[in-house]
Amino acid sequence: SRSIDLAVVPGDGIGKEVVAQGLKVLAAVLPQDVKLETREYDLGAQRWHRTGETLPDAELESLKGHDAILLGAIGDPSVPSGVLERGLLLKLRFAFDHFVNLRPSKLFPNTATPLAGRPDIDFVVVREGTEGPYTGNGGSLRTGTEHEVATEVSLNTAYGVERVVRDAYARAAARPRKKLTLVHKNNVLVYAGHMWKNIFDRVGQEYPEVTTDYLHVDAATIFFVTQPERFDVIVTDNLFGDILTDLAAAVTGGIGLAASGNINPTGAFPSMFEPVHGSAPDIAGTGKADPTATILSVALLLRHLGYEAEAVRIEDAVAADLAERTAGTVRTTDEIGDALAVRVAS
Amino acid sequence: SRSIDLAVVPGDGIGKEVVAQGLKVLAAVLPQDVKLETREYDLGAQRWHRTGETLPDAELESLKGHDAILLGAIGDPSVPSGVLERGLLLKLRFAFDHFVNLRPSKLFPNTATPLAGRPDIDFVVVREGTEGPYTGNGGSLRTGTEHEVATEVSLNTAYGVERVVRDAYARAAARPRKKLTLVHKNNVLVYAGHMWKNIFDRVGQEYPEVTTDYLHVDAATIFFVTQPERFDVIVTDNLFGDILTDLAAAVTGGIGLAASGNINPTGAFPSMFEPVHGSAPDIAGTGKADPTATILSVALLLRHLGYEAEAVRIEDAVAADLAERTAGTVRTTDEIGDALAVRVAS
Ligand SMILES: CC(C)[C@H](C(=O)O)[C@@H](O)C(=O)O
Ligand SMILES: CC(C)[C@H](C(=O)O)[C@@H](O)C(=O)O
Repeated sequence: SRSIDLAVVPGDGIGKEVVAQGLKVLAAVLPQDVKLETREYDLGAQRWHRTGETLPDAELESLKGHDAILLGAIGDPSVPSGVLERGLLLKLRFAFDHFVNLRPSKLFPNTATPLAGRPDIDFVVVREGTEGPYTGNGGSLRTGTEHEVATEVSLNTAYGVERVVRDAYARAAARPRKKLTLVHKNNVLVYAGHMWKNIFDRVGQEYPEVTTDYLHVDAATIFFVTQPERFDVIVTDNLFGDILTDLAAAVTGGIGLAASGNINPTGAFPSMFEPVHGSAPDIAGTGKADPTATILSVALLLRHLGYEAEAVRIEDAVAADLAERTAGTVRTTDEIGDALAVRVAS
Repeated sequence: SRSIDLAVVPGDGIGKEVVAQGLKVLAAVLPQDVKLETREYDLGAQRWHRTGETLPDAELESLKGHDAILLGAIGDPSVPSGVLERGLLLKLRFAFDHFVNLRPSKLFPNTATPLAGRPDIDFVVVREGTEGPYTGNGGSLRTGTEHEVATEVSLNTAYGVERVVRDAYARAAARPRKKLTLVHKNNVLVYAGHMWKNIFDRVGQEYPEVTTDYLHVDAATIFFVTQPERFDVIVTDNLFGDILTDLAAAVTGGIGLAASGNINPTGAFPSMFEPVHGSAPDIAGTGKADPTATILSVALLLRHLGYEAEAVRIEDAVAADLAERTAGTVRTTDEIGDALAVRVAS
């Protein structure tokens, strides 16, 4: 019989609330014969305040044993900036070698976009997840003095770039439009940029059916708001991907809907699924958080574990739910979760 | 008697066409008693193809002697990416220590924005221009092999950050709303990010009248499309500024209107003014290029040289010209230049 052994990291703020809805929908969508086991990990701001720990080795080790991780949100203004990001969230992405940070962007019917004319938006950003300016490689000399020098080193390897570029080509080849855009800044970041471009061009020879394109990151932001329909699959570096996917979320109805997967396609370590949004402490506890991004992240999780039909059921349920929403009605976190659980079960 | 000794670098593609209009409007707006001298420098793609040179020492030396530089656009697809950017455009910004890269964004009446609801947009980005990931500090090991490693180093100094942060505070203090937002990514780029934030907070104590705010760069892109009216002055790093100002241009009617100044506020070297857009070789020679961004850059140039009334005359002329445009009429580069020259002269 089949089973899913899931690690759950609710985290901070609205993280707990949206994860509860994600689990509700997961339980509702799974076939009877699939045994779902979950184990909750108490990680995040409260834990750090209590014990000073972000991610102890024993817990990292234990997380390794699960099939996948569902994460809510990490962060609180009471914790110095960087402590939980570097010590927990990024630590997980790096320890489990989540080199494909997958972020689909789709403008669902009947959702608010800040863009006039409601363009047709349906693209996926494949963001590199283990290199670039995110490696924590940098330092500060004469810290706090007028002579301080601070560096941040973007580290890029052919090994790391090629594997994510390959993943992006495979995803592009599997989509109807078969289009892949590389985004970088190779006119300024010439070392990393040229390596990315060369590898992109070389791997592309194995995918003659995929149409390719290159854009500088600054120009890409322009097209995100003026011509987002031109994009199908985008592959890009860790930092550019971070920036572009928030912008993508904004133009497709807000971060309340943006899902993401931190994927290790080799299966050597569990992959981790999380909404793109943060812990939003200002609305925590009010029932205002939209759990849809987390529920869509559960769909990515199911797809990753081989439950394609169930993933599609969730995505279709979200589309139908948004389309049939009554204008002006405000629903609580729980009500949205309930509505989606009912839809996927039927 | 007063005089302006201007270096003109038309550059490539539409660069030549828009610079011609900029000079036309400059000549029209200047009072009779101001002697305008210009010297044209032949730099860019054609020069590089002909001689292999990007910016010879003698010309760099000669450029130093002018009061200011007006630049059109640099770049052509026939030149490998990075050659002219690093060898000419960035070389000028670095050699002349243009540490304030000033980029105003205003949604003029009657212009197209991709944003629904036409929010009230009127902010200025003060982009650091001489540090960060733009220093060319990086390298590639085992280039072209499967073992290649490429690095890009972001260099940040307290000296460099403090001077641009000070400039931004002074600009914010001089504006009616007196609001300054720092944009960085200090939860990931902790060394550079914390230095920026500490200096930002420290200098802020000298400007109690300025309201301050901090945003991560990813979150800033969201607000650029959902709530751009919240911004007044933004100060940020070289790369984040590059990305944000293209996005800002897109939401305020396109890069046909976005002006910029590469300013050395000390006056030790000439400052350089240029449209944010590139050389657009696809429309070069067609008369389709909008010279407004260059003409607004001329306004920044005049303001920098102390001709405030003339700068305002140009900005008012652009606002009036855009407001009174007849919908549907397409004007050539030359016609827009003529119309603005007439307006500023009267
Ligand atoms: C919280 C932060 C470290 C993270 C990132 O920069 O990757 C977030 O912005 C994201 O996009 O998942
Ligand atoms: C052409 C390029 C080097 C330049 C930059 O990245 O600064 C351009 O994008 C700009 O914004 O002026």
